[in-house]
Amino acid sequence: MTIDLNSDVGESFGAWTFGDDARIIESVSSVNVACGFHAGDPTGIRATCAAAAAAGVSVGAHPAYRDLAGFGRRFIDVEPAELTNDVVYQIGALQALARAAGTTVRYVKPHGALYNTIAVHERQARAVVQAVREVDATLPVLVLPNTVIESEARSAGLRTVVEAFADRAYTPDGALVSRREPGAVLHSETDVVEHVLRMATESEVLAVDGSRIRIEAESICVHGDTPGAVAMAAAVRRALTAAGVGIGAFA
Amino acid sequence: MTIDLNSDVGESFGAWTFGDDARIIESVSSVNVACGFHAGDPTGIRATCAAAAAAGVSVGAHPAYRDLAGFGRRFIDVEPAELTNDVVYQIGALQALARAAGTTVRYVKPHGALYNTIAVHERQARAVVQAVREVDATLPVLVLPNTVIESEARSAGLRTVVEAFADRAYTPDGALVSRREPGAVLHSETDVVEHVLRMATESEVLAVDGSRIRIEAESICVHGDTPGAVAMAAAVRRALTAAGVGIGAFA
Amino acid sequence: MTIDLNSDVGESFGAWTFGDDARIIESVSSVNVACGFHAGDPTGIRATCAAAAAAGVSVGAHPAYRDLAGFGRRFIDVEPAELTNDVVYQIGALQALARAAGTTVRYVKPHGALYNTIAVHERQARAVVQAVREVDATLPVLVLPNTVIESEARSAGLRTVVEAFADRAYTPDGALVSRREPGAVLHSETDVVEHVLRMATESEVLAVDGSRIRIEAESICVHGDTPGAVAMAAAVRRALTAAGVGIGAFA
Amino acid sequence: MTIDLNSDVGESFGAWTFGDDARIIESVSSVNVACGFHAGDPTGIRATCAAAAAAGVSVGAHPAYRDLAGFGRRFIDVEPAELTNDVVYQIGALQALARAAGTTVRYVKPHGALYNTIAVHERQARAVVQAVREVDATLPVLVLPNTVIESEARSAGLRTVVEAFADRAYTPDGALVSRREPGAVLHSETDVVEHVLRMATESEVLAVDGSRIRIEAESICVHGDTPGAVAMAAAVRRALTAAGVGIGAFA
Repeated sequence: MTIDLNSDVGESFGAWTFGDDARIIESVSSVNVACGFHAGDPTGIRATCAAAAAAGVSVGAHPAYRDLAGFGRRFIDVEPAELTNDVVYQIGALQALARAAGTTVRYVKPHGALYNTIAVHERQARAVVQAVREVDATLPVLVLPNTVIESEARSAGLRTVVEAFADRAYTPDGALVSRREPGAVLHSETDVVEHVLRMATESEVLAVDGSRIRIEAESICVHGDTPGAVAMAAAVRRALTAAGVGIGAFA
Repeated sequence: MTIDLNSDVGESFGAWTFGDDARIIESVSSVNVACGFHAGDPTGIRATCAAAAAAGVSVGAHPAYRDLAGFGRRFIDVEPAELTNDVVYQIGALQALARAAGTTVRYVKPHGALYNTIAVHERQARAVVQAVREVDATLPVLVLPNTVIESEARSAGLRTVVEAFADRAYTPDGALVSRREPGAVLHSETDVVEHVLRMATESEVLAVDGSRIRIEAESICVHGDTPGAVAMAAAVRRALTAAGVGIGAFA
Repeated sequence: MTIDLNSDVGESFGAWTFGDDARIIESVSSVNVACGFHAGDPTGIRATCAAAAAAGVSVGAHPAYRDLAGFGRRFIDVEPAELTNDVVYQIGALQALARAAGTTVRYVKPHGALYNTIAVHERQARAVVQAVREVDATLPVLVLPNTVIESEARSAGLRTVVEAFADRAYTPDGALVSRREPGAVLHSETDVVEHVLRMATESEVLAVDGSRIRIEAESICVHGDTPGAVAMAAAVRRALTAAGVGIGAFA
Repeated sequence: MTIDLNSDVGESFGAWTFGDDARIIESVSSVNVACGFHAGDPTGIRATCAAAAAAGVSVGAHPAYRDLAGFGRRFIDVEPAELTNDVVYQIGALQALARAAGTTVRYVKPHGALYNTIAVHERQARAVVQAVREVDATLPVLVLPNTVIESEARSAGLRTVVEAFADRAYTPDGALVSRREPGAVLHSETDVVEHVLRMATESEVLAVDGSRIRIEAESICVHGDTPGAVAMAAAVRRALTAAGVGIGAFA
């Protein structure tokens, strides 16, 4: 039994640091590397790719809306054709830096508001799918299950990799509890570890009402942007390893 | 006898247009496409690449300092390692868009203040050379002859393509007359055409003092950012063709 | 009888020009000056303010979403508190440049997608109102009539100035016909002049179904971003003058 | 006996934090607030101004080159007229946010590479002076003594406030030891405190060769961008207070 752990990295910018990439890379098997539109200057992106390469961790593209001031967390009503080109640009830039750092881009996971939007927004989802097809139609796309992006990507012949979230509560119908509601984020290490073990070993999560939901996740997303998050990621790794679950990038 | 004509394109940005790419592409054999740091949004870059592909015109990368407000025309004292990564990023982004548009990046010509700086600034010149080597060591670099970038690129094993400027006056020692001095730019079609014909057919230019300078240029740069410039480029093409000089991208 | 004519200006950025500010300033009585977030570099902003000052034309602030690549034409789901501060920042910057150019900021008209959004989006409308109150509660806000921003501004004690659009068709209930629908924009000089004369002299517009709508506009918006638009603005001015309508900034 | 302590603040940007403004404001009497060009989004700028206002700390403008990616630490060869307008824009923006936060801008201290450049670069120094004169000719400018900016500002009738650096070594002729040389920055609390006490109580610094230099500083700059720096600032404050030196903003 093997599962992938993924986390967002490369989100520093110039003099500003964000997260602890060096530490998080020790715990995960895949890193979603910022591509410069919401975060990530070329020098930081490259250093992150080099660290991932050195650790044998898989590099994915983490494209976003063009919004440094908003860190890509705000919906932007961008035209689909422009979004496609924005995503092509970002993946291409990352590909070159990844190659310079001795690795390659192996998948795509959109960031922040773009990730959330394409779960439900057909035109933007198709725009992202189009971008991946144009850059490299063999690149898998990380998706939330049962979303518009999942079905659009599959319809277009792209491989989708379903992911679950280590520290997010789920509704009985398998969606994430909105961050605006209480209990949306799990803060206790015990809760997170239990959540992850159930995902990895039983392909299930317990929803907020106690019901069991089936999630066939190939990857689990952990965070690395706070000291607590880094420790949590390490705890998740230890618990999976102790339970006999291998941690490795999806093929 | 064949020579390349190159021009800067793709320098629009969002709602702002710059130059007349469609028209200039009719006159030249190579286009230096902006990569987003001084100009060029992904959608405009792609459209320009598609137009170049349709016209059979060669696409080159036109990387620059990160300076939209200054259009890449201001020297920035960026650290060489950062400059390398900034250039890798830009070329990679353009490569992806060019591929999406059905073509590929065939050479590199730095833009504006970066072009001028690496003619004399060893550390930045080496930084650009390093970027090209890391992205694709087979990509030629367009250079002003007898410059630091020319020697650094050659030392590093890169192919250099010497270019001359259709509308710029030359000093007796083969440098461009500074734009701050009178007569730096030739404005008459007759003068420009004569200048270009001498470059292309005799590998010479007449300097401002009337002396003859040897310039073995493989490419001649024409401008396309004003209506007059577009007409000038067309006149240059006609004159070369009439003189039996073929116009085609360098190999 | 007097009416104000307003137009967007100062929307160049660095090497990119947009519109013909010098010409449009000859036709209007108020100019909405870009503040740097969707367009407008400080040097261009100042030159525009100086030209307005020289022509005796009133300067208004034209704040926008932070989106140079999208020219402020794309909705951004920015938090209201951040929007307030973004607008305060922009107005303050313009105030300083206007003063340096010998004039002052006399009103506020939000730009593009922000203008459209606050017509219907309560939280963003309130955020803009809050910004104006904090900067200078005596500044009027230009508004589309019967919109959320109009009522929010009035409730907050701000003076609102209703504007009508010289070249836009109206629905029978007084809204603008969406640009996505045919006939949304009037292109003939005759139609525009007739539209404007009816607005200015009868406080009415003819809707697309021929019905008459009452609009007590104190200002009429004309465009200046194309050669045709500039000529149209001049035609509007001539027609109003010929009809005995004075053209002057609202007090 | 009273001296001002100043520090750079407001240098976060969006999701990225920088320094510990809340803590540094407890130790200093004046804060140089970023204005958005090298750092500082409007919401963060305003929060910093509000914190300064609450603490009775004086707010100064900290304008910079337009260079978020380089944090304003890289020389940019900007035209003086453009630099003037860039600085006017930044001060104006800060003035509006400061007013909204219940305080006002009381002085100007250029940031980073701009600060270093105008110590020696006449055209850029004059450009900054011109900006301050246009915004408010009563605003003092913080300067390194015996620099081009000091003499240009004085010639133009601006008040200059000489500052010294708590943690920087000085050459025998009163300049700062370049950061590229060893010993440029003092790291020990004992050394810094001794340095500052000598500045504040004897108007002198010990140069690296042991010679005494006269510096009539009205303000001493302390840093706040690392945990160590914040503690150092607190130590400086305690030592000054213990020595009977009052800490207060210059008038």
